Amino acid sequence: MSQKAVVFAGEQGQRFVSELKDLLRIPSVSTAPEHFGDVRRAAEFVAAGLRSAGLENVRLIETGTEPSPGRPGHQGHPLVYGEWLHAEPLPDGSPRPTVLFYGHYDVQPAEPLEEWMSPPFEPTERDGNLYARGAVDDKGQMWMHVKALESLLKADGRLPVNVRVLMEGEEEVGGEGIAAFVREHGDQLKADVALVSDTEMFAPELPTLCVGLRGMIYTELEAQGAATDLHSGIYGGAAPNPLVALAQIITQLKGSDGRINIPGFYDGIEEPTPAELDAWRSLPFDEEEYRWREVGSTELTGEEGYSVLERTWARPTMDVHGISGGFTGVGAKTVIPARASAKISFRLVPGMKPEETFSRYRRFVEQICPRGVQVKATLIHSGDPIVVSTDNRYVHAATEAMKEVFGKPTVFVRGGGSIPIVGDFVRELKTPTVMMGFGLPDDNLHAPNEKFHLANFHRGIESIVWFLDKVGDPVKAGI
Amino acid sequence: MSQKAVVFAGEQGQRFVSELKDLLRIPSVSTAPEHFGDVRRAAEFVAAGLRSAGLENVRLIETGTEPSPGRPGHQGHPLVYGEWLHAEPLPDGSPRPTVLFYGHYDVQPAEPLEEWMSPPFEPTERDGNLYARGAVDDKGQMWMHVKALESLLKADGRLPVNVRVLMEGEEEVGGEGIAAFVREHGDQLKADVALVSDTEMFAPELPTLCVGLRGMIYTELEAQGAATDLHSGIYGGAAPNPLVALAQIITQLKGSDGRINIPGFYDGIEEPTPAELDAWRSLPFDEEEYRWREVGSTELTGEEGYSVLERTWARPTMDVHGISGGFTGVGAKTVIPARASAKISFRLVPGMKPEETFSRYRRFVEQICPRGVQVKATLIHSGDPIVVSTDNRYVHAATEAMKEVFGKPTVFVRGGGSIPIVGDFVRELKTPTVMMGFGLPDDNLHAPNEKFHLANFHRGIESIVWFLDKVGDPVKAGI
Repeated sequence: MSQKAVVFAGEQGQRFVSELKDLLRIPSVSTAPEHFGDVRRAAEFVAAGLRSAGLENVRLIETGTEPSPGRPGHQGHPLVYGEWLHAEPLPDGSPRPTVLFYGHYDVQPAEPLEEWMSPPFEPTERDGNLYARGAVDDKGQMWMHVKALESLLKADGRLPVNVRVLMEGEEEVGGEGIAAFVREHGDQLKADVALVSDTEMFAPELPTLCVGLRGMIYTELEAQGAATDLHSGIYGGAAPNPLVALAQIITQLKGSDGRINIPGFYDGIEEPTPAELDAWRSLPFDEEEYRWREVGSTELTGEEGYSVLERTWARPTMDVHGISGGFTGVGAKTVIPARASAKISFRLVPGMKPEETFSRYRRFVEQICPRGVQVKATLIHSGDPIVVSTDNRYVHAATEAMKEVFGKPTVFVRGGGSIPIVGDFVRELKTPTVMMGFGLPDDNLHAPNEKFHLANFHRGIESIVWFLDKVGDPVKAGI
Repeated sequence: MSQKAVVFAGEQGQRFVSELKDLLRIPSVSTAPEHFGDVRRAAEFVAAGLRSAGLENVRLIETGTEPSPGRPGHQGHPLVYGEWLHAEPLPDGSPRPTVLFYGHYDVQPAEPLEEWMSPPFEPTERDGNLYARGAVDDKGQMWMHVKALESLLKADGRLPVNVRVLMEGEEEVGGEGIAAFVREHGDQLKADVALVSDTEMFAPELPTLCVGLRGMIYTELEAQGAATDLHSGIYGGAAPNPLVALAQIITQLKGSDGRINIPGFYDGIEEPTPAELDAWRSLPFDEEEYRWREVGSTELTGEEGYSVLERTWARPTMDVHGISGGFTGVGAKTVIPARASAKISFRLVPGMKPEETFSRYRRFVEQICPRGVQVKATLIHSGDPIVVSTDNRYVHAATEAMKEVFGKPTVFVRGGGSIPIVGDFVRELKTPTVMMGFGLPDDNLHAPNEKFHLANFHRGIESIVWFLDKVGDPVKAGI
C-alpha cells in the first residue's frame, strides 16, 4: 500500500527539490549546438537519478542517423532508459500492468535573457515557486516521475506495477530520436499505458487530465531577392526586398479574420463532440480574465465564431516566431537584404496530417511568392494531433488518484501544444497515454520567468504514487 | 597653375593610398555605441591629415545636446574643421571664391561579416580595387579632398581659392550634429559653393555630376501584443502576434503594384522636366543588364509605369531593413513574442517634406494596426530631397575640370540615396553644392565587399585640383 511511500515523499520533499535545482542548473538547450555537452550531462544526471531510485538496467541510448550516400549523419541527444519488471502477478496469475513513464530533460532556449528576473539556469525560489528554464517543462515534472518511483521503491521495497522509463532530450527540437527508437524497437517498450506529465492543470487546485493535443508543423521560409545586400537609396524602387515579400506572404497566409487561406487546409478536420463542447463551456474560464491576466493584450485575436478554448484546443492556427535578415541593431542601416527568412508554424487538430499540411503550405507560398523573389519552405519538425478516449481504466485510475490528493473530481481538457511522442505511442505501440500534468496556466512555458509551483511538484509525486497503486490493484481500486 | 599639383599627386599616389588604408582600418561605425572611441580616432586622423596638408585652424568641433528638463543630453561624434583663406584677390580686387569641402569619416556597420571576402577593416587590394568598409563611402572620397588640397599647397605653396573644410562623423546616422552646427554657426561657414564627393559615376569612365538626391525618413515601428512572450501551442489562436501584425501593416503600406497606400503620400511631388527625362533616356543604361549584373534578381520590382532610373531617382519608395522580435536562432522555438519591431524607411523626392510624410505615415499605421496590438512609430532620422540647377558656374567648372581628366563631357544624373547636409547647405547657407563623385555602380555601398576603384581615387584628386583651378580663375576657365 502506498501510504508509506507518500509519507516518504513528504519527508524527503526538500531533498527532491534540491536535486531538481541541480538538474535545472544544467543548460540542456537541445536546439543550441553550443549546449550539446550540457544536454548529455542532463541525460547522465537523469540516469543517475533512476539508478539511485532503484530502477534497473538503466542506460543511455544513443540517437542520430548514420551517414548514407548524399546525406551526412548526425549525432542526436541520448534517450535515458530504466525498468523495474518484478511486480507480483495478480491473484489470478496474470501479470500486473506495465506503465511506461515518459518525460524530457531538454529545455527551450532561455532568450530573451534580459527579461528574466533571476537567471534562467540559476533556479530561484520566490513565493512558493521555483523559477528556472525547464522548471515545469519538463524537468520538474519528469523529476516527479523519478521521485514517485523512488518513494515507492524505498518505502515498500517494490513497485505495485511493472515500470519502464524512457526520457528524451530532443522534445523541444521535434523528438526525432525517440520517434525512430519507438518505431524500430517498440518491442522493448511493451506497456499497457504510458504516463506523461508535460501538461498543465486547468486552474490552481483543479486536478486535470489532458485528453487531446494539437499537432504541428514548424517551418522555415527563406526568401531570396537580389544577389547581394543593396543600398536602399540607390536600389530602392527597383530591387526586390525579401523582407517585404515575407510580409506579403505571411499576410496572405492568414486573413485578418484569423482564417488560414491555404487551399484545402481545413479539409477533413474532426470537430469536438457536442458533449465535449458542453463540458468545456462548464469549465471555470472567463475570457476577459484570461485576456488581461494571462495574455495581457488589449484584445484577443483568432478565428471568429469560436470560443477561446475552441480556438486554442480544437482549431488549427498559424504563428510567426521570428524573422531574420537585414539589420536590426541600434540605429539605422539602409540595407535591402539579399536574403531573409521567417520561422512559421501551424498547429494542427485531429483529422489533419502534418506531411499533407506542409505540402499544401509549400505549394501555396510558392504560388503567391511576389515577383523577383524566390521562396523555399523547409519543414523543421512536425507532430501528429491526438485525442484520447476518456472511457478507459487508466484514465479512471488517474482521476481516482488525483481525488486522493486534491479531494475533488478531475476535469478533462485538451492542450493546444504538441507532445509528438504521444502520437507515436498510439500509432506504433498501440499504447494509450495518460497525460497527468501539474503545471499552472501562468507558469510561463517557453517564455522568460518559467516557474513550477512547488506545492504542485509535491502533489504530483503523490498523485503518481496513488496512480501506480490503483493501476496495480484494479479490483480494489474499482477501476 | 595646377599642373605641378597634378604631378605631385601622381608622384605621391602610393602614399595617399597607404594613408587611406590606415584610415580604413579604424572601424568608425557611427551607429554602434561600442565604436564610439573609434569614430573619434577617425576624426583625429582626418584632423591630422588636414594639418599636414597645410590647412589652418584645424580643430574638432564637439556635437551633441545638453541635457534639458525631461531630456537627457547626448554626446555626438565630432566635426572636423579646417580652412585656408589666403587666396589672392582677383585682378578686379574682388575676393576669390570660397569653396566649402564636405565629406564624412564615419561608416555603415559591416554586418553580415561572413559575406566579406576580406575583413571589412583590413583594407585589401584586389584587381585594382581597394576593398574595405568605407572605401568609397566616404572615407576614400573624403581623402581625395584632403589629398587634392595637399597637392596644391605642397606644389604651389598656395590654393587658387579660399577653402573651408567640414567633415562629419554622423552621416550614416542622420547627421544631426552637423545640421545643428550649420543652423547655428552658418556665419563660420560662409562659402560660394560646396563640394561633396559622396556619389558615384554613372558608368566606368563616364564623368558624372549628381544634381538631385532623394530625401528620406528612417523609422522604427514597434508593435506590442501580449504582456509577455507566450507559447504558441497554448496561446496560438487567441494571443495577438506582433510579428504577424507588422507583416500585415507592411503589406498594407505598399501594394503589390509598388504604390504606397498612405493617404496624401504623393501629394505635391515635383516631376522631373521633360528635358531631364529625355537626357536620362539617352544615358548608357540597359535595364536587363542592370537586373542581372547589379541587382542579381530574377525580376526587378517597383512602381509600374516608370523606368528604373525614374523609380530610383524621382519616385518615392518604401523599404523594410530588418524585423526583430521572437526567435531567429538555429532550430525551433514556439514563441509568440510580446514585442516586435521593424525598421522601415521611405525615400522622398522633391516636393515632399520629411516631417509631413512621417506624420502621415504615423497616422496611417495607427489606423490600420490590427486588433490586440499597439504600434508606435519613431522617426530615427530624416533628410530633405534636393535638386540642383545645372545652369550655374560651379557646375560648369566641375564639368570642365572632369573634361581635363577624362577627356569627355559630363553627364547629369540624380542619386537615389540621401546626403542630408546638401539640403542644409541650400536651406541654411544658400550655398549651392557640386556633387562630383567617383564611386562606381558596383562598389557595394552599405553592403559586404565595399570597394573603391583606385584609378578613380587618383582621377578624383586630379579632378578636384582642376576644379579649384577653374573656380579660382573663372575668366581663364571661361565659366
